[in-house]
Amino acid sequence: MRITTATLPDVPSLSTLLSELFSQEAEFAPNDDAQRRGLVRIISDPDVGIILVAKDGDRAVGMVNILFTISTALGERVAILEDMIVSARARGAGIGSRLLEQAIAAARDAGCKRVTLLTDRTNDSAQRFYARHGFVPSGMIPLRLALP
Amino acid sequence: MRITTATLPDVPSLSTLLSELFSQEAEFAPNDDAQRRGLVRIISDPDVGIILVAKDGDRAVGMVNILFTISTALGERVAILEDMIVSARARGAGIGSRLLEQAIAAARDAGCKRVTLLTDRTNDSAQRFYARHGFVPSGMIPLRLALP
Repeated sequence: MRITTATLPDVPSLSTLLSELFSQEAEFAPNDDAQRRGLVRIISDPDVGIILVAKDGDRAVGMVNILFTISTALGERVAILEDMIVSARARGAGIGSRLLEQAIAAARDAGCKRVTLLTDRTNDSAQRFYARHGFVPSGMIPLRLALP
Repeated sequence: MRITTATLPDVPSLSTLLSELFSQEAEFAPNDDAQRRGLVRIISDPDVGIILVAKDGDRAVGMVNILFTISTALGERVAILEDMIVSARARGAGIGSRLLEQAIAAARDAGCKRVTLLTDRTNDSAQRFYARHGFVPSGMIPLRLALP
């Protein structure tokens, strides 16, 4: 198993992983066209973010997405971590931890001073996973407005 | 009172507003140097985001910050709304609502399909304010990792 920065040929297999993720998450639903479009936009512009992909041979078994923005509180680049998924048939082998650690390292290398992520309030195992890697709950709550 | 897109000469007065905001928010503390550095980075690159400033004559009385990123769930640009503040002495005149409505319009004009913000869990008046403008609570919670 190796973890690399995703490139455009990885888009179809990354979208398959995202469909698996969005089938589990309460707030999202799979949409292959949208997923491919978003993946292409991120992979095509390193200023937008970095996608890491875990591969077992040629098969993508996990991914994570680091998006960049600027914090006025810190005066520096910060990262938003999204789309952390290990395919169900590849779990239990530590791939998620390796992906997350490499994502944190990639954020640090890119000059980020903080990583923020959103996880389902009811997903205790995800919260334990992130806590093991140093993430702490924020006292803030997310609000959303769709712009259809 | 008029609302315009902030430019570099607005940075000192925007940082004064941010100091007022970060004095209220539980998770942040004022830091003028960091605030100015972050503001300059956002204002200098329209791909990073847009800052709107409300001015009463030459005096900045409010601001809001729209940061851009890409959603793989939607396949489109999305916005993160931060740094929404109206100076205490200018409140009660509807400036916050005008700023928020213009920020939503600016996000839409920039091609964003969703706006997400984080607000203090204990700040009921902020949550009512955002609810009046269509924002709905997410079922997700934010986790953070500092990278010092």
